[in-house]
Amino acid sequence: MDEHLMPRKVTRADVARLSGVSTAVVSYVLNDGPKPVAKVTRERVLEAVRVLGYRPNAAARALSRGTADTIGMIVVDSRNPFFAQLLHALDRASVRNGRSLLIVNSDRERQSAVDQVHDLLARQVGGLILADVLTDTEQEIVASLGVPALLINQYTGSGGLLPAMGVDFRAGARQAVDHVIGHGYRDVAFVGGALAIDQRERGWADALRDAGLPLGQSVHAPFSYEGGLSAGRAIAEADRRPRAVFAASDQIAIGLLAAFADAGLRVPDDIAVVSFDGIAEAAYTRPALTTVAQPIAEMADAAIRRLVDGAGDPGYTTFPTELLIRRSCGCDPSMDAPPTT
Amino acid sequence: MDEHLMPRKVTRADVARLSGVSTAVVSYVLNDGPKPVAKVTRERVLEAVRVLGYRPNAAARALSRGTADTIGMIVVDSRNPFFAQLLHALDRASVRNGRSLLIVNSDRERQSAVDQVHDLLARQVGGLILADVLTDTEQEIVASLGVPALLINQYTGSGGLLPAMGVDFRAGARQAVDHVIGHGYRDVAFVGGALAIDQRERGWADALRDAGLPLGQSVHAPFSYEGGLSAGRAIAEADRRPRAVFAASDQIAIGLLAAFADAGLRVPDDIAVVSFDGIAEAAYTRPALTTVAQPIAEMADAAIRRLVDGAGDPGYTTFPTELLIRRSCGCDPSMDAPPTT
Repeated sequence: MDEHLMPRKVTRADVARLSGVSTAVVSYVLNDGPKPVAKVTRERVLEAVRVLGYRPNAAARALSRGTADTIGMIVVDSRNPFFAQLLHALDRASVRNGRSLLIVNSDRERQSAVDQVHDLLARQVGGLILADVLTDTEQEIVASLGVPALLINQYTGSGGLLPAMGVDFRAGARQAVDHVIGHGYRDVAFVGGALAIDQRERGWADALRDAGLPLGQSVHAPFSYEGGLSAGRAIAEADRRPRAVFAASDQIAIGLLAAFADAGLRVPDDIAVVSFDGIAEAAYTRPALTTVAQPIAEMADAAIRRLVDGAGDPGYTTFPTELLIRRSCGCDPSMDAPPTT
Repeated sequence: MDEHLMPRKVTRADVARLSGVSTAVVSYVLNDGPKPVAKVTRERVLEAVRVLGYRPNAAARALSRGTADTIGMIVVDSRNPFFAQLLHALDRASVRNGRSLLIVNSDRERQSAVDQVHDLLARQVGGLILADVLTDTEQEIVASLGVPALLINQYTGSGGLLPAMGVDFRAGARQAVDHVIGHGYRDVAFVGGALAIDQRERGWADALRDAGLPLGQSVHAPFSYEGGLSAGRAIAEADRRPRAVFAASDQIAIGLLAAFADAGLRVPDDIAVVSFDGIAEAAYTRPALTTVAQPIAEMADAAIRRLVDGAGDPGYTTFPTELLIRRSCGCDPSMDAPPTT
């Protein structure tokens, strides 16, 4: 085969030659700066790019960045505002650490978590963040693959097979329930997920037990607005209505507020609400939600730095929570200090 | 060099041989099914995977899927619930069409939209979805790159340089404002973005003008909860308070509801609110928001199919909006039909 007939990679120099400008000008046009380029020149350069089929930087970037700079993230549902805020923070932290984040949703039809991990590996990611509940078997499979992987926001205790990061859900829940007990409420219900792994229900029970109070009603509901709405209706219609409710997520609490408003119940006067996560939305409900905030930005930073360093050994790294006092618990946030913490 | 010393790709057969099982059993272990595998066998297989450094399917998948199956998405802020819901729908639609979606946030520090497009191209994406405002120059650069690219949710009119998809923002806004005019409200304010490109303010003005009403107050605010809260405070404190407000997004409207509640104003009795987008959250405020819904799932499906077909020529493809009647406009949603549409 005549080597002149072989396809040759089109270069920036080819574009410069065809459009009659320097290679620097080609760069200015394709990067939209840093120096301005006259409109007529810009159009000539872009026409040359089109005619030659030049792909700027793609080859060089792919070579220089290799594979290790990309982190793959599997998230259970990016519509959930907590996960939307977490993945945004992880994206920011990735860029700060010279990495890129590729996101896939794990609630895809026809694909298991393990399938999705394989898919990400086929895309040459150098690390994995799993914001999803993985079974022990799934964790075992991921751990065997030789790619740094980290669970985030799933409590694994001491028995996890992968390194994991997140808050102390049990202590955080206790913070919230201790606070409403401090308001003098003696009948405190729980609304949250039914998974055995969830520590928030345990923290709620700890607080009541240690205060010498009976265990309140426990309502299991999906982690969604609709889940909160349905649970709130059941609570509003119950024969014995609790004086306060601890919701395992702000999203559930927003559903509760809607159900209580529909039933003509005033929050916090008739029924107080405290919740968990500290998403942005929680400040804009009325009353605004008193909530146990997760340190999303700090966790995201630590997770990316940990992956950059190779993830390390299994074990759960704990981040502290912070109780944000607003009105839904019965506090007046204009006061200098909360009545109890 | 002795060819026996050359590194050879580790295969599933190697794993099967070392662990003393069939290749089918290796697959069952690594895919977590479809057939169960005894715990002791599974552990032996995973140990062999670890020792040999086997990466299941990665090579075969990378070869078989090539590059064209991945679509890159640039989204302005994945925390915004409208974009969170849009990207989730695009992710679902991608999987249905045998594609994968890679997402990056465009509000990254130190990276322009054009930089991010180059980054995605370096990752060999076969198509681009841009859920962000691109300047004409940026659109021109993207159009020259020879990769199918599509703008979504940015109105380009007839002058766009890239194919684009979205609702008719002007007609949709008009639907909402016509509806509140039908309630008899004569003083209707607008709260939304200040960009010249935004058609919603024009639709609001169209409706008032055609009803022979004076133009109400127009408050420009960021597309955020906080933007809505600040705008709502300004409206609540104004000398002449409007009877109704049209908000350019549900997120802004949620901020307005908070500000009006803080000012002791009842919605819709003292001031009615209608908004735009139809995000999930809009059904859980109290009162629930009457809003112009965008057909997120249909747009996502059409966008992915269009990219699969090569995107095609510039031009704006319009999707219809639907007015969802709830309580914030003054309607009683238990009625069979709204008073006006």
